[in-house]
Amino acid sequence: MTIQAVFNVAEICAQHGITDVVLSPGSRSAPLTLAFARHPALTVRVVPDERAAAFIGLGIAQAQRRAVALVCTSGTAGLNYAPAVAEAFFQHIPLVIFTADRPPEWIDQLDGQTIRQRNLYGAHAKGEFEFPVDTSHADAKWHSARIVNEAINLAQAAPAGPVQVNVPLREPFYPKAGEEVGYEKDVKIIQTLQDACFPATQELKSLVSEFNAAPRVLLVFGQQPRQPWHDEFELSAQNDRDNYVAVADIISNVNQQNEGCYSIINLHDVFLAGATATLKEALQPALLITCGQSLISKSLKQFLRRFPAAQHWHIQPAGPVADTFGQLTKIIRADPSEFIPELLKKVQHTEAQPLELRNQRSNFRQSWAASEIAAYKLLRKEVYSFEHVPFNEFSIFGLLLHWVQQETALHLANSMAVRYANILSLPQGEERNIEVFANRGTSGIDGCNSTAVGAALAQPNRPVVLLTGDVAFFYDRNAFWHNYPTPNLRVVLFNNHGGGIFRIIDGPRQQPELDEFFETRQTLTAENTARDFGLRYFPVSSFEELEAALPVFFAPDGGAAILEVMTDSRTNAAFFEQYRAAVKQAFA
Amino acid sequence: MTIQAVFNVAEICAQHGITDVVLSPGSRSAPLTLAFARHPALTVRVVPDERAAAFIGLGIAQAQRRAVALVCTSGTAGLNYAPAVAEAFFQHIPLVIFTADRPPEWIDQLDGQTIRQRNLYGAHAKGEFEFPVDTSHADAKWHSARIVNEAINLAQAAPAGPVQVNVPLREPFYPKAGEEVGYEKDVKIIQTLQDACFPATQELKSLVSEFNAAPRVLLVFGQQPRQPWHDEFELSAQNDRDNYVAVADIISNVNQQNEGCYSIINLHDVFLAGATATLKEALQPALLITCGQSLISKSLKQFLRRFPAAQHWHIQPAGPVADTFGQLTKIIRADPSEFIPELLKKVQHTEAQPLELRNQRSNFRQSWAASEIAAYKLLRKEVYSFEHVPFNEFSIFGLLLHWVQQETALHLANSMAVRYANILSLPQGEERNIEVFANRGTSGIDGCNSTAVGAALAQPNRPVVLLTGDVAFFYDRNAFWHNYPTPNLRVVLFNNHGGGIFRIIDGPRQQPELDEFFETRQTLTAENTARDFGLRYFPVSSFEELEAALPVFFAPDGGAAILEVMTDSRTNAAFFEQYRAAVKQAFA
Repeated sequence: MTIQAVFNVAEICAQHGITDVVLSPGSRSAPLTLAFARHPALTVRVVPDERAAAFIGLGIAQAQRRAVALVCTSGTAGLNYAPAVAEAFFQHIPLVIFTADRPPEWIDQLDGQTIRQRNLYGAHAKGEFEFPVDTSHADAKWHSARIVNEAINLAQAAPAGPVQVNVPLREPFYPKAGEEVGYEKDVKIIQTLQDACFPATQELKSLVSEFNAAPRVLLVFGQQPRQPWHDEFELSAQNDRDNYVAVADIISNVNQQNEGCYSIINLHDVFLAGATATLKEALQPALLITCGQSLISKSLKQFLRRFPAAQHWHIQPAGPVADTFGQLTKIIRADPSEFIPELLKKVQHTEAQPLELRNQRSNFRQSWAASEIAAYKLLRKEVYSFEHVPFNEFSIFGLLLHWVQQETALHLANSMAVRYANILSLPQGEERNIEVFANRGTSGIDGCNSTAVGAALAQPNRPVVLLTGDVAFFYDRNAFWHNYPTPNLRVVLFNNHGGGIFRIIDGPRQQPELDEFFETRQTLTAENTARDFGLRYFPVSSFEELEAALPVFFAPDGGAAILEVMTDSRTNAAFFEQYRAAVKQAFA
Repeated sequence: MTIQAVFNVAEICAQHGITDVVLSPGSRSAPLTLAFARHPALTVRVVPDERAAAFIGLGIAQAQRRAVALVCTSGTAGLNYAPAVAEAFFQHIPLVIFTADRPPEWIDQLDGQTIRQRNLYGAHAKGEFEFPVDTSHADAKWHSARIVNEAINLAQAAPAGPVQVNVPLREPFYPKAGEEVGYEKDVKIIQTLQDACFPATQELKSLVSEFNAAPRVLLVFGQQPRQPWHDEFELSAQNDRDNYVAVADIISNVNQQNEGCYSIINLHDVFLAGATATLKEALQPALLITCGQSLISKSLKQFLRRFPAAQHWHIQPAGPVADTFGQLTKIIRADPSEFIPELLKKVQHTEAQPLELRNQRSNFRQSWAASEIAAYKLLRKEVYSFEHVPFNEFSIFGLLLHWVQQETALHLANSMAVRYANILSLPQGEERNIEVFANRGTSGIDGCNSTAVGAALAQPNRPVVLLTGDVAFFYDRNAFWHNYPTPNLRVVLFNNHGGGIFRIIDGPRQQPELDEFFETRQTLTAENTARDFGLRYFPVSSFEELEAALPVFFAPDGGAAILEVMTDSRTNAAFFEQYRAAVKQAFA
């Protein structure tokens, strides 16, 4: 009986440790809805807009670091998941997606809410499974349970990602009156044990030798969640700094811990944008070691492409590896959290190296450190001198980064928000234990609110701050369209009434079509949105208003709120231009 | 030079008769943006939310009955088109979709806004084309122009639908300062001439004989745009009525013209829901002839499945044919507008037939006509007796259908709106020349506002009325988020604060999970949305308020407006239940 097999889906999910389900209502999906809603170990939240629902699920999975189940009805419901599915695929977030479907004989027969749901996410799902349409035969029931196990295991296997389980359902969708459907506690469970891949002893030895012999070693951290080994690394970097230079984008969650101690470089996006060829030569690595996923800093990417290292090792336990800088030479199959500490423990201290190498390493390190210091000073002078600067989003962004509280999950929206934040970096020398999130798998603006809402729902006792621009914000207002409070959520909306990025990047701003066809001029403010969803609302358009609003806005028990920073697109562009000129001058 | 080839894309579109382009801003798409924005023969509208943009494009294409071009940037932008693409695929609407992309060497290399865009719409696009990344070689330039022709021709060939042209673009995206890029007027154009398929003479003869011999002929019209031959058919049906019975859902745009003359049946959704097996036997066809796409009436579909005709002919010029009732026997490759009038001209009048056949046909017709009359009376008594009925959405729906003005494009949202409308049917005997639209390709709620907005933009001098429920309305509020006025648009929003359909259909309403997990309880009203987008706003919660509001709301020069009809979900459900009981009684 198929309803029993469907109820077991929820049981299998729960036994695999899934705790959270995001569900969008529908008729065809009713058996799945009942199965998940009634399960005592599962928290099921209802979000009507599937696009938002999937990003909320992604935000929950990011926060909890485990798979989330999504459930939707047949038809285009599942297609609205597609943007979040692609983001999950490239950001390696495990999502187990259950799409209810008509039985196969009714596909393409002009029945309502019927599309071609097999392999709905194409190249952006790790796999696709078809639930048997009739589970009355014992083999079919085994099949139904087996594929749910396979789907969950596949979603969680490194690199994690989304999988689809398409569930064709014939009527009746509901248990008969009085009929009790329970969960079979002895459902089939197939666990996958984590494998610990690591280079063989001989190989590790040879890697250590190569590292020892390299005159200039650069570690670059791509996007990754904050992990316990980061603490250790940040501390040890202060001692090991002669051995290598580490560069970390804001989304890598690796930060310089001590102000004035430049063992970890965070302000590369400032100085690499202005560095001369001579400086870049001094910064050029001989051995580049990377881990994690994407980088935000275009300057860093371009620098590493044009001043390539002779060797580029990328550390990733499994899956395809990107050759981001066109110079990849070695893929090291290991977990960076194990490999990097082990490698750094084994390599010789620079003091033990020949003098020439020591000098090269020292010069290399000093070039990076001096640039970092210069960038730090430049930001103080150009961006943070609030008594001189106009009311512009770049400076206010910096101010906000200082206001973000301890333990915050800091969500940075695409596109300008995450770029500003990466340039400015988290304030150094403060142990606020802030974790940074951004949808940089696909860098879309389409689900930034929802992802932050998901984070807020998943961890109600953790402050969640979203820094976003107006296009991303209004695009995804349905993030708030559900019945679950998010008192821990603070949204800072930088409203310049359009895609200010196009006024800042070269190209479009020289075109007569800038205003209408690039900048997305839009007139909304968040006032009505705040009213619709019962969010506290703080519109500010001067430093005075901003400073008055901030303590109230961030007050821990105040409840969900939007701080809308109204700036002028032209002022922002002019200020950023001035900043860029200063960078060019400083590193000329 | 690739920018020239991209500019030629716009020229080829224009020379193929495309006039309207919906564009969502982006950086990677800049060359396409410039090409389309600068073309003097193209109207380019900017819509930031790609999901809404694609449905707006679909609405324009529906209204204009020609292909519309969509342009978006790389990454998830194109995935947000997916729901509208699926709808266009199943509703046979031609869309030519240009997705800007990174060049192939940068796919999967962790660059921003980069996904796997090849074949992005999978089974829901008619085809996918890859623009050459470098058109400096003459062959490549020929290739680039050829595939754009192929794409447009494929989108428009019957059955029409969406196609994707993926356009990988390397920098520079913009002409250099002072560089003029024009359109090459002699671009390559490949036209496809329409083929006129029609059964061979001998075959037509045999079809005519079969028709002549059939004791009970039923014509059923699925979804189709209003066409000139419908007028002729509606008139001739009054004379030919002894030959056949015609049944037409509201989305078929075929209507009974004369009140009291039951040659065309529109109220089948009323009486088939209550008809006894005896009545259904009397209504059972021997020969079923269908054309068009989907049907709304579940009662009609179930009736035809359970009381099948011996012969079922479906008339469709090309493409796969659905066997909606499980009894398809002949696919006739012809345009219904040519085949049906020709067939009906050739068949013998019933008077010329043997007496037994005449009697059978007469009984058949009278069974349908009597049911139609009874349904008509039942609706008058149960639904339209405004002095007795509570303030409920079903009755108000009927009232609104009477208010819709001459020449209106009437858009019916999924899911309850289109069902109510189909039950009630357009008021008969009035030549208001109303055309009915609904996204019944996939029956999604996701783009109903946007499709109506597209219609309003495409035909600014035609009234556009959207009847919708609250879930569909709030789902797609970004339909209004752009800078183009739609003074001809009137939205009637039936707000019962949830998916009222689940309180009406059997199954969910018996479940304890109804409120939270099925009905999508939601608290929004449209007041703030109206304020955001400068729409006139009329909230009503009684017949008095409604009647006061209607003339102002519908006033032709009033400008875009929302009429929000606030009803109670439980009252609606109880009223509809009472209506259903009356139906069961009337046809028992």
